[in-house]
Amino acid sequence: MTKKLSPDFKIFSLSSNIPLARKIAQSLGVELGKMSTSRFSDGEINVNIDESIRGDHVYVVQSTSNPVNENLMELMIMIDALRRASAKTINLVIPYYGYARQDRKAKSREPITAKLVANMIEMAGADRIVALDLHATQVQGFFDIPLDHLLGAPLIAEYFKDCGLVGDDTVVVAPDHGGATRARKLAEFLKCPIAIIDKRRPKHNVAEVMHIVGDIEGKTCILIDDMIDTAGTIVQGAKALKEKGAKTVYASCTHAILSGPAVERLKDSPIEKLVCTDSIHHEEWIDLDNLDIISVGQLFGEAISRIHTNQSVSPLFNDEYSESITEDLVIE
Amino acid sequence: MTKKLSPDFKIFSLSSNIPLARKIAQSLGVELGKMSTSRFSDGEINVNIDESIRGDHVYVVQSTSNPVNENLMELMIMIDALRRASAKTINLVIPYYGYARQDRKAKSREPITAKLVANMIEMAGADRIVALDLHATQVQGFFDIPLDHLLGAPLIAEYFKDCGLVGDDTVVVAPDHGGATRARKLAEFLKCPIAIIDKRRPKHNVAEVMHIVGDIEGKTCILIDDMIDTAGTIVQGAKALKEKGAKTVYASCTHAILSGPAVERLKDSPIEKLVCTDSIHHEEWIDLDNLDIISVGQLFGEAISRIHTNQSVSPLFNDEYSESITEDLVIE
Amino acid sequence: MTKKLSPDFKIFSLSSNIPLARKIAQSLGVELGKMSTSRFSDGEINVNIDESIRGDHVYVVQSTSNPVNENLMELMIMIDALRRASAKTINLVIPYYGYARQDRKAKSREPITAKLVANMIEMAGADRIVALDLHATQVQGFFDIPLDHLLGAPLIAEYFKDCGLVGDDTVVVAPDHGGATRARKLAEFLKCPIAIIDKRRPKHNVAEVMHIVGDIEGKTCILIDDMIDTAGTIVQGAKALKEKGAKTVYASCTHAILSGPAVERLKDSPIEKLVCTDSIHHEEWIDLDNLDIISVGQLFGEAISRIHTNQSVSPLFNDEYSESITEDLVIE
Amino acid sequence: MTKKLSPDFKIFSLSSNIPLARKIAQSLGVELGKMSTSRFSDGEINVNIDESIRGDHVYVVQSTSNPVNENLMELMIMIDALRRASAKTINLVIPYYGYARQDRKAKSREPITAKLVANMIEMAGADRIVALDLHATQVQGFFDIPLDHLLGAPLIAEYFKDCGLVGDDTVVVAPDHGGATRARKLAEFLKCPIAIIDKRRPKHNVAEVMHIVGDIEGKTCILIDDMIDTAGTIVQGAKALKEKGAKTVYASCTHAILSGPAVERLKDSPIEKLVCTDSIHHEEWIDLDNLDIISVGQLFGEAISRIHTNQSVSPLFNDEYSESITEDLVIE
Amino acid sequence: MTKKLSPDFKIFSLSSNIPLARKIAQSLGVELGKMSTSRFSDGEINVNIDESIRGDHVYVVQSTSNPVNENLMELMIMIDALRRASAKTINLVIPYYGYARQDRKAKSREPITAKLVANMIEMAGADRIVALDLHATQVQGFFDIPLDHLLGAPLIAEYFKDCGLVGDDTVVVAPDHGGATRARKLAEFLKCPIAIIDKRRPKHNVAEVMHIVGDIEGKTCILIDDMIDTAGTIVQGAKALKEKGAKTVYASCTHAILSGPAVERLKDSPIEKLVCTDSIHHEEWIDLDNLDIISVGQLFGEAISRIHTNQSVSPLFNDEYSESITEDLVIE
Amino acid sequence: MTKKLSPDFKIFSLSSNIPLARKIAQSLGVELGKMSTSRFSDGEINVNIDESIRGDHVYVVQSTSNPVNENLMELMIMIDALRRASAKTINLVIPYYGYARQDRKAKSREPITAKLVANMIEMAGADRIVALDLHATQVQGFFDIPLDHLLGAPLIAEYFKDCGLVGDDTVVVAPDHGGATRARKLAEFLKCPIAIIDKRRPKHNVAEVMHIVGDIEGKTCILIDDMIDTAGTIVQGAKALKEKGAKTVYASCTHAILSGPAVERLKDSPIEKLVCTDSIHHEEWIDLDNLDIISVGQLFGEAISRIHTNQSVSPLFNDEYSESITEDLVIE
Repeated sequence: MTKKLSPDFKIFSLSSNIPLARKIAQSLGVELGKMSTSRFSDGEINVNIDESIRGDHVYVVQSTSNPVNENLMELMIMIDALRRASAKTINLVIPYYGYARQDRKAKSREPITAKLVANMIEMAGADRIVALDLHATQVQGFFDIPLDHLLGAPLIAEYFKDCGLVGDDTVVVAPDHGGATRARKLAEFLKCPIAIIDKRRPKHNVAEVMHIVGDIEGKTCILIDDMIDTAGTIVQGAKALKEKGAKTVYASCTHAILSGPAVERLKDSPIEKLVCTDSIHHEEWIDLDNLDIISVGQLFGEAISRIHTNQSVSPLFNDEYSESITEDLVIE
Repeated sequence: MTKKLSPDFKIFSLSSNIPLARKIAQSLGVELGKMSTSRFSDGEINVNIDESIRGDHVYVVQSTSNPVNENLMELMIMIDALRRASAKTINLVIPYYGYARQDRKAKSREPITAKLVANMIEMAGADRIVALDLHATQVQGFFDIPLDHLLGAPLIAEYFKDCGLVGDDTVVVAPDHGGATRARKLAEFLKCPIAIIDKRRPKHNVAEVMHIVGDIEGKTCILIDDMIDTAGTIVQGAKALKEKGAKTVYASCTHAILSGPAVERLKDSPIEKLVCTDSIHHEEWIDLDNLDIISVGQLFGEAISRIHTNQSVSPLFNDEYSESITEDLVIE
Repeated sequence: MTKKLSPDFKIFSLSSNIPLARKIAQSLGVELGKMSTSRFSDGEINVNIDESIRGDHVYVVQSTSNPVNENLMELMIMIDALRRASAKTINLVIPYYGYARQDRKAKSREPITAKLVANMIEMAGADRIVALDLHATQVQGFFDIPLDHLLGAPLIAEYFKDCGLVGDDTVVVAPDHGGATRARKLAEFLKCPIAIIDKRRPKHNVAEVMHIVGDIEGKTCILIDDMIDTAGTIVQGAKALKEKGAKTVYASCTHAILSGPAVERLKDSPIEKLVCTDSIHHEEWIDLDNLDIISVGQLFGEAISRIHTNQSVSPLFNDEYSESITEDLVIE
Repeated sequence: MTKKLSPDFKIFSLSSNIPLARKIAQSLGVELGKMSTSRFSDGEINVNIDESIRGDHVYVVQSTSNPVNENLMELMIMIDALRRASAKTINLVIPYYGYARQDRKAKSREPITAKLVANMIEMAGADRIVALDLHATQVQGFFDIPLDHLLGAPLIAEYFKDCGLVGDDTVVVAPDHGGATRARKLAEFLKCPIAIIDKRRPKHNVAEVMHIVGDIEGKTCILIDDMIDTAGTIVQGAKALKEKGAKTVYASCTHAILSGPAVERLKDSPIEKLVCTDSIHHEEWIDLDNLDIISVGQLFGEAISRIHTNQSVSPLFNDEYSESITEDLVIE
Repeated sequence: MTKKLSPDFKIFSLSSNIPLARKIAQSLGVELGKMSTSRFSDGEINVNIDESIRGDHVYVVQSTSNPVNENLMELMIMIDALRRASAKTINLVIPYYGYARQDRKAKSREPITAKLVANMIEMAGADRIVALDLHATQVQGFFDIPLDHLLGAPLIAEYFKDCGLVGDDTVVVAPDHGGATRARKLAEFLKCPIAIIDKRRPKHNVAEVMHIVGDIEGKTCILIDDMIDTAGTIVQGAKALKEKGAKTVYASCTHAILSGPAVERLKDSPIEKLVCTDSIHHEEWIDLDNLDIISVGQLFGEAISRIHTNQSVSPLFNDEYSESITEDLVIE
Repeated sequence: MTKKLSPDFKIFSLSSNIPLARKIAQSLGVELGKMSTSRFSDGEINVNIDESIRGDHVYVVQSTSNPVNENLMELMIMIDALRRASAKTINLVIPYYGYARQDRKAKSREPITAKLVANMIEMAGADRIVALDLHATQVQGFFDIPLDHLLGAPLIAEYFKDCGLVGDDTVVVAPDHGGATRARKLAEFLKCPIAIIDKRRPKHNVAEVMHIVGDIEGKTCILIDDMIDTAGTIVQGAKALKEKGAKTVYASCTHAILSGPAVERLKDSPIEKLVCTDSIHHEEWIDLDNLDIISVGQLFGEAISRIHTNQSVSPLFNDEYSESITEDLVIE
């Protein structure tokens, strides 16, 4: 990434993930723009942009992770301030897009909050989104502005290839029915078979059982999901795999939400290693011995550089690219 | 459905699926509104609405099936005519929503045509959509107007229950990774296990093989998809199931697109029975001996009646409702 | 308020001020609609509407008070859910409109968050706003949908008239320059003169002094503001008034934000009585001996009733109306 | 046209008129961009853009001629793809704008499809239109984006001037009442009088007769229209002119739709020569001996060059310009 | 018109044509709503609506005639006031639509003001337009809201039929090329031929001559236009007709703008009778002996009644309707 | 201001304030663009732009002063013409923003015309506003496009500082309650106290009296307002100040509307000197002996230069800047 960015390029970080924003800026060879956000005494957000951005192409890094409503409003207010201050374009870098699971009406009278958030962002005046592993790829279509969708799978695959987990002794396992496609995609990289955990209730008034569709006996299993929230599904899955004879169980996700009982559950689980990215920042990185974190900083940096200089981002989805950046991949 | 509709209710059918529209009107106890569409000599569409709809709540039935662009433009022009003619509300009944598979950018520089179509429909002035088994449930969020999403699965499940296909001797099979959730949903109704067909390429330069994840030997298999287009996936899947020891193979889908080589492939296949709905109309219904068609006319009729009289549509998702209408379910 | 509301009227309360919502519903002779909001483990808001609102005129009560971003997003998500569930109209009852002080760019690169919030609400699909004492009356113009603006001053005036604070022995005092018009309005009701507290810095590098413009010696002073947040201004003002010879000092506001050091400051202040409304709810009502709370429940109830039955709301601004409801005015 | 275009200029051709697009590109000294469109088996359009257009000013050539709905949707989908792929501006070059005759409600409950199409194109994200001889000039106002309106009349006039058809022995004839202004415009170039064909029914229940308003006996007549569709009007007009004593009859139009019985009718007609432009492409150019085709390729090329380099396009309406390009005007 | 209008119907008149508004109200059997407009000392418009219109269907009568900018802004401000005051629908009755001649770019860098005005009206919040004889019928398409387009031709035809001007001794004459279609339409009613005045310049540097295309010698001529502004064209036309041997010349138009030198020119002209409608009000009706004014009050009244009660307006275009209202047609 | 503007910069002046536009252009070192506006005979506005602006950044100077509706429509039509002529950006320089006092609903059924005007301007296609001393600063939020808000106070303060009016012998007086903040702001510059004129009615049926809140006896008073319209308030205030013992009374405002009886009133008043800016042009500058006019031409010029070259405008609010330009401040 030797191409120097033009002087009308500015990148700012809001509150949710400053360490990642710093990594992105560093990979771009620039400083983060000067700004700060604070709270008035009554909780209202106060955004201060401390340098002129008139006529600039501005990039704003913010994950709408927990506290999601605070982070989202911070982003909205920042967009408003930038638009009124005559930014030329406003480009949002959203490593983790919150509310993404509310992407359809599953029951009557449910909102579709993922679309609401997209509408809010567009209405406020954003010109572009750079996102990573959206919960459903259809969320791309919730936006009418250009959205560049980066993928964590190549980086995660590199991690496991480095561990030697390839071929028929490894099985990538989807923790539920919706994850089969994601499992197949990772399995493609690792040239290995897949399995699915099929929770079902065999008869009325009978307890749900963890059925495993596919052959995992004696195999090294990699449970893969896009996000791990309370870790219930993944830990239950890991236990079921062990019970059914799996040799070792790894788990992986892009977005480490890890809310509520997640850490406790993971500590008690048979998971050998949990591998996730730094799309969400945890103040004191999660107190887990078996956690490895892969940084997406360089990936975002490269994407932004290509976007700003009008180059295609598709090379970032190639194996060669992933292999080229794995050296410093694990940051913790 | 004894509740009489108010006189400001009108229902029209465009060209793509008049037989289904007639069934819907019949179930509502009304006549289809008087209108016609034709083509000028140069192919431009000519819409004639032959009765006043000023101040009326108008429902328009149109599947955007093949020829999709003709059917879509017919719908757009109808909405324009209705809006300018002072319809009070314009409600679209879209049994099959075309272009639904282009719902995300899978590669660089792809359109998201499913969203484009949603934007077109909203821009033209539609007030509400009634749809059936959208390819991805997230397409609901492509709209900001209310959308009532009906489900074909309960009706299909009733069909198979009537055939006695329930319990552990039956396996619902997803023909690809993306279909696991859909398979589990049908399996729920039939209290049976699932399997997945996992097409994979074990090594570089080696032919793709149809791997089956899950246990199907000696079982009656039901392949389920939301739509069958060229029938390649489903017929390949059926053959693989038979090879791996399945006793009998049924196939089912909501939307019978059946384009190109589909009929030939289905004729040559080991599929015992193909079960689909009448969401798409085929002029000479498909020349297939083993085809059973379930009508969604009564389901749409009930939904429209509930919408027009401000009742909740959620009871239509209950078992009781499906059971109540199965008598005349199979129409061919 | 004997007029019975039609069955298509529904009123719901979100989380911020349920006690006031109950008072409003009671004054309308209806129950609050069945719904609940909760948080997922990761902080995302979950809205459940437990009864059909298809075709209904829905009123939603929510103050966007602290925690303002939570309350605002709860409101946004509720609007989205209502719109998608086919509410006929969505009417927001916002007793306290947060972010109202960010209503202009005071410095370079500031947002105008009060407008951003108005844009968000309109974009989400609200049809009407009922508000109370907006910080600047111009905020009405931030909306293009109808907004009914209720006034707290007549109720507050009734309170002080009941205390005998009328005529030339009373002075209404604006705590800063921007409040002179508000002070004059209350003084009109009480037929009394006004004064202004004029904080100024006489020379460079000299401390700011509290100058009082107007004659307050030996008078009973009523400090009036639209909102009291940290109570710095009002308490400083009260002290200055006492120092300059005021006999007694009352203070009043519509919106009791009372954040941060407010309660401590008020306890230590020479304020005889603080009078405010219940537009903002405090879980354990503020631990202040000298606090009197006037309910705006009946005022909102009457306004909603008039709006729903297409009557003018202007009679609510007359003296007669205020006098008619003062009986139960003070609730604490 | 020696000015070299900047590297951020790209021009693509969709399916309807690739030969004209090639001529335009050639006159600009560039290659057409790499792309292709195809149909999925079920008729859905598949657009592939095979080179990066990130940050580019993209021009897309497409006539919305027969099959109009296919060509229009192809254009819509292309716009969607370009916008999502971050084109800087999207400029549509529409030599023939279909549905233009549906530009008003002539009867109750008619659509105004020409406006609907304009709305669709703007909504999809086009930034500019370059069009030619719109059926009604008011269609310019259907768009709010800039529209450059080119004129075919100067080129057509050059053709007839080359044939020596000038002065009082020539009469330009409008084939119906709506065409009088167009006839006068061409007559201006040729310094000659006009006439109008006035189809009228003298009494009830009497057949319509072709009345000619104006003096054409012994004159060379040039029938002029903006488009010839089924050729009924023009051929009937030509016959009437001959019957009333016209010496020779030429016919001319910008847009050669020539649908349905057009070719048969033209073959049987007394028309000496039919002169039209290549705004619409016919696969095997129309099998007519007396057809001369004038290319608008150079005209569009010059217009695009001026637009892209921010020069005024008005010089293209001058006589000098038309004269300068007539050398290679007739292409067939 | 015996059908009684519902109580939620209100009709208001702005300043431009109160006499016509009164006629419309009278034909509807209602009073004009109470309101007034005035000017502040600095020319700003002040709109006062003196009765509640909450929940009402409001009709506003305003011609955007001279002073066009004042009348247009009065209309815009009225729409704003009505929307904010919670009118249920806002229906504009615009007998004369000003700026209609600026409906296309005739030269570089011209505005399309007729579209700008349409955009302004829609943006302000109008729900429907009722208009009369728009300069170009395509202006209908400048609006996306419903527009009911009334025609003056049947009323004007009735007038001339009453004068006995029918059949081949009468010729309807278009004063310029653009008016041929309008002339043919009136001629249809009168079963008579047409002619066109063809102003042309035979050679360079030679004065323009008034050529008449068609046979008018010894005939009674009716010059017809949609509007007469400075009366230059119509008076020049009348003189040319007389010179070329016309027996008598009548003139007619829907919109009597009559600005600048119009009255002087008409007084000096050989026009026997000028017939126009009251779509534009002149304070002291024009001081012309040979002027007859046809009222469109009853026509608008009937149209509004039909719109408000959801009946089709198309019967108003029939001969029978025109004949039924001609009794009181001429008002001056 | 030595920085040369790029060739794609153009500045035009509409009719309302050409002298100020010339000063702005002069301070920028450029000529005003070639254009003219005129009226057709019927009052419709005709805008002619006589040079290409394709791809240019265009600035348009227009105060929407009396005749406000004419000036506003002139501006709207100019924006439409510029947008359709492919201006790159359209930047409005509005020294005086008319209708600004209609910025809220003070009574039922009032419009909010200041917002309506903002919506009109944005809808027409403006990209940015440069304004001066908006009546309420909240009007900034009526726009969603960037708005640069310039302040007249520093210039006015310089004027009075030059007159020696600083410190405790001077009092800045607000002529009504709403002006206290404005008075304090000017007083800040002059390091002096403030007073407020408090018009009140002490009892029912008793005449209003001019009460002065604050100490003005023996002091030099400066009455300050943002605009002086009919001059009633300011002259009444000046008289009251003199009666209560003020030594001398100056008056000042940014916007000299001076409509109706203003000049007469000012001539009869005890005002020593009236100081205002040239934001509004009066054909024959007001016939007042004691009037001094401060030009804002250089201020706007500097602001435009900074905007066009992407520099911050905030330095223009500093004392240093005001001091630097006071040399030629008074122009009359």
